[in-house]
Amino acid sequence: MPGRYNPRMTGAPTLDFWFDFASTYSYPAAMRIAPLAEAAGVTVRWRPFLLGPIFKAQGWDNSPFNIYPAKGSYMWRDLERICAELQLPFVRPTVFPQNSLTAARMALAALEEDWGEIFCRAIYAAEFGEGLDIGTPGAVVGVLATLRRNAEAVLQHAQSDAIKTRLRRQTEEAQRRGLFGAPSFVAADGELFWGNDRLEAALAWAGR
Amino acid sequence: MPGRYNPRMTGAPTLDFWFDFASTYSYPAAMRIAPLAEAAGVTVRWRPFLLGPIFKAQGWDNSPFNIYPAKGSYMWRDLERICAELQLPFVRPTVFPQNSLTAARMALAALEEDWGEIFCRAIYAAEFGEGLDIGTPGAVVGVLATLRRNAEAVLQHAQSDAIKTRLRRQTEEAQRRGLFGAPSFVAADGELFWGNDRLEAALAWAGR
Repeated sequence: MPGRYNPRMTGAPTLDFWFDFASTYSYPAAMRIAPLAEAAGVTVRWRPFLLGPIFKAQGWDNSPFNIYPAKGSYMWRDLERICAELQLPFVRPTVFPQNSLTAARMALAALEEDWGEIFCRAIYAAEFGEGLDIGTPGAVVGVLATLRRNAEAVLQHAQSDAIKTRLRRQTEEAQRRGLFGAPSFVAADGELFWGNDRLEAALAWAGR
Repeated sequence: MPGRYNPRMTGAPTLDFWFDFASTYSYPAAMRIAPLAEAAGVTVRWRPFLLGPIFKAQGWDNSPFNIYPAKGSYMWRDLERICAELQLPFVRPTVFPQNSLTAARMALAALEEDWGEIFCRAIYAAEFGEGLDIGTPGAVVGVLATLRRNAEAVLQHAQSDAIKTRLRRQTEEAQRRGLFGAPSFVAADGELFWGNDRLEAALAWAGR
């Protein structure tokens, strides 16, 4: 994309941060990554994708946290502990997993400009910090309003064929790179790290 | 069991360490837990169990790392990185998952005496440090020989009804406590932590 900022051209080490707004552990990762990356001298590329098609390829039509209740109930408790430790607000959403399609498209649109990261953090904060359903127009419009963005213009651009295609391609690329969950981190040499727990290791690897 | 050492009676905080010798991430956990627990002032109860029946209840007849190849190939790379970081030897076994039944029974027998932890670490070292198949008599007998134990006597006790029943009961208890994978750590108040990554958090919780 001509004119689009490409961190790989600056010479600084980069790390791709792959996330889905439906993913619970992506919430703390999204909230932690910016200051940690800065301290590590690593430039982060935020790369929204959809877990749905990847889960489907594994034979799941739902979140594994719903399919396997013991794992699911553990995850919620674990996430609550993690957020408490980080002093991040946490409210378990009543809807899970949430439909992250529109938010993911909007994130791609926002990341073309300079408010992408702020938008992503605001969506995560709405979903897991306030327990809202970001699959509903109301919640997303609320986030855009907080950021003083024109909801209609953003939505129109997010629904364009160009953005739709890019999200599809990002998801295909995620699958090609061996991703099977979120958050995931991929260094420039292809090294893959999975999970909020691996954020520090991924940054250390990328910054070597 | 009369006369059996019960750490809960000493007044020191305790943490139950649940592991299966078939579990890959239980290897670094088993190698790390003793010094970390000592530093935290926590007494650890080593509790072998079998993941098989728990996986079966989730609909799996194999390790999820075999059922989901992307996750499996990531796990082996991740484990390799973790062992390198800890300077633990690592050789990927050709057989996975391994039949851990006999080793688990032997561990229960050994943990009744004073060589249980050493036996557990030696089994993990043989399996993931040397790549041996601990489901075969040769490998287990080799471990017992290194520890200067009478293999025949140990095997005979391990195959007793008392030990068989205890292993079955431990596995049932694991399921009752909400365990769905290994390693897992359970504090005296029932708080559950899953995964080698959570060892430090589990010890901190238990020692509060």
